[in-house]
Amino acid sequence: MPLSFASRLDNVETSAIRELFKLLGKPGIISFAGGFPDSAMFDVEGLREASQRALAEEPGGALQYGATEGYEPLRTQLAAFERSKGVADLEPHQLIVTTGSQQALDLLGKTMIDPGDKVIVEGPTFLATIQCFRLYGADVQSAPIDAHGVQVDRLEEMIKEHKPKFVYLIPTFGNPSGALLSLERRRKVLELAVKYKVLIVEDDPYGDLYFGEAPPPSILALTKEVPGSREWVAHCGSMSKVLSPGLRVGWLVAQPELLAKATMCKQFSDAHTSTFAQATAAQYLKSGRMPETLKNVRRKYGERASVMAESLRKELGDAIEFTAPQGGLFFWARLTGAGGKLKDANVLAKRAIENNVAFVPGAPFFAKDPDVATLRLSFATADVEKTREGIARLAKAL
Amino acid sequence: MPLSFASRLDNVETSAIRELFKLLGKPGIISFAGGFPDSAMFDVEGLREASQRALAEEPGGALQYGATEGYEPLRTQLAAFERSKGVADLEPHQLIVTTGSQQALDLLGKTMIDPGDKVIVEGPTFLATIQCFRLYGADVQSAPIDAHGVQVDRLEEMIKEHKPKFVYLIPTFGNPSGALLSLERRRKVLELAVKYKVLIVEDDPYGDLYFGEAPPPSILALTKEVPGSREWVAHCGSMSKVLSPGLRVGWLVAQPELLAKATMCKQFSDAHTSTFAQATAAQYLKSGRMPETLKNVRRKYGERASVMAESLRKELGDAIEFTAPQGGLFFWARLTGAGGKLKDANVLAKRAIENNVAFVPGAPFFAKDPDVATLRLSFATADVEKTREGIARLAKAL
Repeated sequence: MPLSFASRLDNVETSAIRELFKLLGKPGIISFAGGFPDSAMFDVEGLREASQRALAEEPGGALQYGATEGYEPLRTQLAAFERSKGVADLEPHQLIVTTGSQQALDLLGKTMIDPGDKVIVEGPTFLATIQCFRLYGADVQSAPIDAHGVQVDRLEEMIKEHKPKFVYLIPTFGNPSGALLSLERRRKVLELAVKYKVLIVEDDPYGDLYFGEAPPPSILALTKEVPGSREWVAHCGSMSKVLSPGLRVGWLVAQPELLAKATMCKQFSDAHTSTFAQATAAQYLKSGRMPETLKNVRRKYGERASVMAESLRKELGDAIEFTAPQGGLFFWARLTGAGGKLKDANVLAKRAIENNVAFVPGAPFFAKDPDVATLRLSFATADVEKTREGIARLAKAL
Repeated sequence: MPLSFASRLDNVETSAIRELFKLLGKPGIISFAGGFPDSAMFDVEGLREASQRALAEEPGGALQYGATEGYEPLRTQLAAFERSKGVADLEPHQLIVTTGSQQALDLLGKTMIDPGDKVIVEGPTFLATIQCFRLYGADVQSAPIDAHGVQVDRLEEMIKEHKPKFVYLIPTFGNPSGALLSLERRRKVLELAVKYKVLIVEDDPYGDLYFGEAPPPSILALTKEVPGSREWVAHCGSMSKVLSPGLRVGWLVAQPELLAKATMCKQFSDAHTSTFAQATAAQYLKSGRMPETLKNVRRKYGERASVMAESLRKELGDAIEFTAPQGGLFFWARLTGAGGKLKDANVLAKRAIENNVAFVPGAPFFAKDPDVATLRLSFATADVEKTREGIARLAKAL
């Protein structure tokens, strides 16, 4: 008799993407498949100094058990970081530190979702979010998006129809969509939150990675403009895309009752986030290097994104359509079938690997009704030369 | 209308201990209440060097996203560490790294427990374990223990009666019991596992903290002596008590199918454990400083434990009974009421705070039928002088 597992595992499957990733070890391959930042951009020296100061100034704090809510100096720095981005008067006790923003999602699932509860996400959205919520038994519904983010009229209809436990959005440079929710739609989302008393979960790991003008303020920052909306927003932040994913430092801002329940759940999930990593992040933020780091990653990713847009237009022409992203790490594109070319990104993904270039087909990012013509291309890890070469190979595969 | 939370939260309550801990900030208090190691014993210099090497030798590995299963060099070191403790032929792929052993418990809950499932734990056991399993809807049953650990005859009866999803034990220097499961009982537990096809979860954060002779091999190590038992053991290890809790580095050894499911759950819990912390732990283990560190903590904790035993006998006499622990961090004791003295540890805890000494009453550590005469005293953080003084204050309070 084998072990008998919990029935919640029946709700999730091994991701098609993971299978694809096993092929990426092939030598000479140019990969647009990853969802991670470029290691070469990490401020290793700054982090080295920060970790040294953490151990020198308060070794006990950095190495001992810590409060589940987070290491106080880091909460102070993160609150200031959010305030610098327009979240007026955010206090350290209004956020908790999480083990990456993935854990914030897990804690929201654990805290909020009963089996059968509805949750609305964007279609497409971050794959690990869908699976994370399904593990708690969520019935995940997809609201359609366009280049300006979630379509708020459709979202309102779906809120009325499904009465969801919450709505999960990546409003700024979404994964995989790259889409930027417009200011007008952000306000509308907050009005819907108040009108229907529904929690909006704003996942914001990419908001700092803009190439030109800064994007509109986060939904959290905009709550000050929509009376009564603050209590209906939970905001997940992350150090992973701009500083280092390896620290696993994220944070969750929410109203006091939700934050208290999430803290209790976290106590039994991992006690607290690594205090060594937290103290290092706190020292890094305190060091004042962050603005320069942000300037650097914005410039480099912006350059790569613009080369990718140019190459896609030049090499694939009308066989592909996309809106060039204004930030983040991803192009979201659609095969048009023009000139009798391929329209199925799953088939193209296999041919691409044969041509030594990789990307992720879009279908798995949809909780329902996948669009097989879509694909995601990350411009984060290939430099300008490789991006040109990789897109040329992609054109050959097509 | 307030937020509506998941019904699983109804199964847990804020711990009485947390309330007590709020009082510990009182100046001049001597605390035997903590469950953590002494910060003064951390090998800060060794960890500083290890973190530097991690960043110098492979900054990408230490700062980038990593495999959910764990950072490969750390898995290699941990497998060797377990082999050095008698877990014959353990390979790196047979364990995953977890964010402290608390996360291993959470992943076991997520992977195994359906609401209403029975789980057997020791009475008393680690409080956060009870709450962690209850969050997944477990019906937690308590098997009685004595100074030699869980009473295996009663355990067998309970396995027959409850058909549990698994049995959770801290066989070596239990928290809060300090008890050491005898070799004979360890073998019997493995025989029960095979006979009833029930998973045994061995939580082993304290096994390296012995004062005299080494304890019997872990249940995991003993599987080689009981045919067919290996697939019925999941083993949780931790760096927290001997090296540093702030790293949040633990590990889970289990049979392949369980390990794969736990890995999938971990992917959606926190993606992976901090690679910076993992790379630091890997470099530390590689540096060869661990044997000296272990020798040091064993000697110091052993000294404090023996002073506590002596002081308790001298100051409280027959008003208290206990078996002096051979390792770990805790004394588990019972008020006898001799000489008309207090028999309720909850009342004593309050009086103790008034006398500037703190401990944790035993009742909350029982999943069922609490024994209010019991108490837990940690000897980890007060030095020899303070231990003597603290126990004298306790006698005064009694």
